[in-house]
Parts: sequence; C-alpha cells; structure tokens
Amino acid sequence: MQQVNLGMIGGGTVGSGVFHAWQKNGGLMAARLGVKLVFRKIAVKAFDEPRPYPITRELMTTDWQEVVNDPEIHIIIELVGGCGIARTMILGALEKGKTVVTANKALLSAHGPELFAAAAKNGANLYYEASVCGGIPIIKSLREGFVANQFPAIYGIVNGTCNYILSRMKAEGADFAAVLADAQKHGYAETPPDLDIDGFDAQHKIGILASLAHGFWADHHQIHTEGIRDVSKIDMQFAEKLGYTIKLLGIAKQISGKNPGVQVSVYPTLIPNTHVLASVIGVSNSRFERGDIVADTLFYGRGAGKDATASAVLSDVADAALD
Amino acid sequence: MQQVNLGMIGGGTVGSGVFHAWQKNGGLMAARLGVKLVFRKIAVKAFDEPRPYPITRELMTTDWQEVVNDPEIHIIIELVGGCGIARTMILGALEKGKTVVTANKALLSAHGPELFAAAAKNGANLYYEASVCGGIPIIKSLREGFVANQFPAIYGIVNGTCNYILSRMKAEGADFAAVLADAQKHGYAETPPDLDIDGFDAQHKIGILASLAHGFWADHHQIHTEGIRDVSKIDMQFAEKLGYTIKLLGIAKQISGKNPGVQVSVYPTLIPNTHVLASVIGVSNSRFERGDIVADTLFYGRGAGKDATASAVLSDVADAALD
Repeated sequence: MQQVNLGMIGGGTVGSGVFHAWQKNGGLMAARLGVKLVFRKIAVKAFDEPRPYPITRELMTTDWQEVVNDPEIHIIIELVGGCGIARTMILGALEKGKTVVTANKALLSAHGPELFAAAAKNGANLYYEASVCGGIPIIKSLREGFVANQFPAIYGIVNGTCNYILSRMKAEGADFAAVLADAQKHGYAETPPDLDIDGFDAQHKIGILASLAHGFWADHHQIHTEGIRDVSKIDMQFAEKLGYTIKLLGIAKQISGKNPGVQVSVYPTLIPNTHVLASVIGVSNSRFERGDIVADTLFYGRGAGKDATASAVLSDVADAALD
Repeated sequence: MQQVNLGMIGGGTVGSGVFHAWQKNGGLMAARLGVKLVFRKIAVKAFDEPRPYPITRELMTTDWQEVVNDPEIHIIIELVGGCGIARTMILGALEKGKTVVTANKALLSAHGPELFAAAAKNGANLYYEASVCGGIPIIKSLREGFVANQFPAIYGIVNGTCNYILSRMKAEGADFAAVLADAQKHGYAETPPDLDIDGFDAQHKIGILASLAHGFWADHHQIHTEGIRDVSKIDMQFAEKLGYTIKLLGIAKQISGKNPGVQVSVYPTLIPNTHVLASVIGVSNSRFERGDIVADTLFYGRGAGKDATASAVLSDVADAALD
C-alpha cells in the first residue's frame, strides 16, 4: 500500500485531537483510501505541555523547522494559529512544494491571496476545510457538491460562542453580561472574548466562504461587522413577541441592479422562529445557502472543538493524500 | 482548455433539468474546474415528449446505444430510472470503460454489487450522488468529508413525499387518506403512491447510505421497512401532547455487544420537538449522522426535483471530469 507521511506543527488541544483521531481511525482511513497515512514528526511548544490526548514522545520535536525541512514528509498540518509565525511556517512549507493543511482562519482572512499565490507558484496545495465551521464539510460542499451552482445568498451561524450566549439569553431571559461571564467560567467563551463576541471570528469565516463562492478574495476590512455586545434582554423579549429569534449571522448576498456585486457582512439578525436556522442552539454552527440550481440547503454541526476540527483536518489530509 | 464530452440517456424531467443547469452554469463550471464540459448526445424517448426545459434538437437521438457506443463520449449520465433497461445501459457503458453518473437508487439498491463489480473490472467509475437526497451532497460528505469517522448512527428523513404528508397531517390535524389524495392531486405524491408511502424509496436510500458508511452492501430484503400508511390523526395528537413529532426515518445503527453489526431499518419514529429533525417540514430531506470523531451533524435540503437532482448529477460529472 502506498504511504504518505505527515508532519504536524502544533501539539496542543487541536493537534493532539488530530493525533488521537488518527490513532483511532487511521487504519480505517487506510482501508477506505488505499493509502497509509503515517505521522513522522510533530512540532510542539513543549514536550510536556498539557494536552487532552497524549502524543507519542518519539514523534515530538520543539523545532518546527525539522518538520518543514524533512524531505520524507509530504503533507504539513499547521495548527499553530494566528497571523505571526504560522505564516512563516506555511510559506516555508509551500516553497518546498509541500501540501499544507491548515485550520487557521485568521491567517487566511488576513493573508489569503499571498498564501494561495505561494501555493500556485510552487505547484503545491493549500487545504483549509477546518478553518470554517469545524467538522461540517462546508468548503468541500461549496467547491465540489455545489460546483454547478451560483450562490445568491449564504447565511451562516458561524460562531459557536455567540450562538451559545444568544441561545442562553433567549432560553433563560438572561442578560448578556451575566451569560458571558458564566460562559467564560465554563470555557465556552475566551478571556478576553472580543474576537468572538465582536464578530471578528465570524467575519474571518464568512469572508472565506464568500471568497470561495464568488471567486474573488473578500477584503476583511471591507466586511461590515457588528457583534452581539449590544443585544439586550429587551431585544430578545421583543423578538420573541414577534415570533423571531436573534442570531449572529455571517451573510454573503449577491446584489443585482445598477451596482452588481457581493455584499458580505456580519450582524445580529431577526430570524423567523419557523426557519430551521432559528432552531440551531448552543455551540453548534450552521450554514444556510441558496444555490441557483439546488435551491436552499442547510448544514449543521459542531463548529469547533478538538474533535470536530480533527475530523475536518483529516478529511483534508485524505484529499491531499489522494491528489 | 481540456474538454470532456458528455452523453445522457433520459431527456425527460430530470434529464432536461440537467441540460438546463448546464446551459445556465456550464461556463462557470468550466472556469471553476479548468475543464470544459460538452454535451454530445442525449437519448430521449421521443423528440417531442413533454419536458420542463427544452433540449437542443441536434443533440437528441432516440437510440440510447448511439450514446453508449460513441467513442468521443467520456461520461454517460443515466437518468432512465428503474431496474430494467437502465441496468443494461449502465453495464454496457461500464464495459466500454466509460464513467457512469446515475441517479438510479432503485437499481443501485437491487443490483449495487453487480454494478460496482463491473466498474472495478473495467477500471471505470460509477458515481451516484443524485441517487440519495437529491441536491444535498450526502454521498460526498460521508465518503470524503467524514472519511476519518466511524458512524455509530445515521438517521435520515429521506423521502420527501412522506415528510410532506406527515407535516401536513401535523399542521392541519388532517387524516392520512385526505392529505394523500390532495398530495396526489397537486403532484407531491405519485399514483400509485406505494413506493413512497410504504417506505421502499426510503429503504433504497438508507440501504445505500448504510453500505457506504460501513463498507458492506446492505441487502434490501433484510431492511425492516414500515411506511406511513398506518399513522393516524390520533397518533399525531398523542405525539404532540407528549412533545414529539412523527417522522419517517431511514436508520442505520451500529450494534455492539454479543452480536455486533449494523441494523438498517425504515419506520415512523417519535422525535422530540426540540431536535432539529423535528423542524424539517414539507418535501425537504434531511440526514442526521453521528460520527465518532465529528459528533453530530445534519444536512438539509430539497431531496428531489429536477433542479436539485441536476445539481447533484453535475457535481458528479465535475468530479468525474477531474479524475
């Protein structure tokens, strides 16, 4: 059986999730793909950093360059996150013609054109299913499953933290500040929470989806972005009275008429209670899109977390291995 | 630009839908794929049979063998349906090493092993995304998006006619017989309606999904199948009182314990109103699956109809063209 060697940079929560999923189902994947996937090296911050699943000690290194420079490694998985060193790592791997799989939506949103140009220049591939909506195969469905469609409208509940907070505000009639504080205490929101609750995470994601659906790169500075900080208990109560639910949506809408184009934005939206999106509660993500041929479709699932993200990372690895 | 030639057998409702979608978005698909897709021949029952979209007259023939035998045609789209002549057509095309794209769930359900063996023997590919749940990319997501997962449970609302009837029975407090008669009058149910309402269509679909998820071929004679004929107004009312909704589900469940295996079945099921599947109403389809890594996900969309099916057929054509 053909063998494809993997290197990973990042051995924390998500990285150890990928390693765990591979340990559990790597044999099954090999049977399904006809290709054996083998981890050769995993770069970590520290051998003994806390991680939810263990990583085999012999595979670990604290020098990421060892992973990128190993000529035996075909696919590099980048799970460091952020727009700093991760950019150097990915560019370094692409320059060596290696395939890169990333979950880094912030980096794609800020430096997408540069990264894809580097991939094209070096005949390498850059996969990023895990960057949007965790385990739901959104990128693959837009690119492949709906390849025969134009997309007049895409609406997504793309940030699990905001959806969790809004769901609890609605269910409990609670205040934003109280729910946020409790969410932070229980690990459903980060401290500081700005990236999520001010809509920037949703902005990164809807920008990536809009770019993919419409074949241009959406400049994230031009995406109107409004978070949920100002959604109050009273707003919730009025919405409820009128038969609506408030959700933070990422929206990409085709505009026709005199100035045709695509409007990309993020803001809290009133959704009729009868619409399926209104019933998406908790940390789940969901994306609703209208294709001109397929009509309306919706995907729903866990939008983040080590395991859902691992599922998406490994699906990209599988695609890359068969390429 | 590379060119891939298409032949189609079947120029009725779905066939003309595929042709229409290709006319509308074929240029866009070429730009996305880097491959030009060109229809060369379309076999029809009669040049002037009624069809929702016109088909270019010069492409039509009433002899399907002309399509299968044309050495310039790379991909054959079979949209004749049923287990008779369609089987001969597909086997004929596969024997010539041609790629086949089909929406024929009845044929796959009854003769899947024979067809896939013929494909393997001739080094040809058989694509069937459109056979289950129309436009929702279910086959692709199970095969590729969730390739790193085992599937402890798959639950699907996979028959639009049954879901339409049950939704109306619930909303209107109406009797099964009355809603069925009205659905037949308006084209939401066929006459005779047995294939849908007795659960056989759902049986074909869950059989295909179970086979794909678990790597064996589910014998459709062994699938416990119960339709919705006996669901009464009283059942609906009791369900409602207890906070449940009745849906016809196709179910594929992994059984552990002394006799491990996969239980595949179709029957009307009580679903808690708080579950997303309960909010799937009308002719829509939806499939909920639990992956051991990705956790719970749900897909929702139009399960049938010429356009949704066309979207799925063309996504298979695109995959085949890039192969």
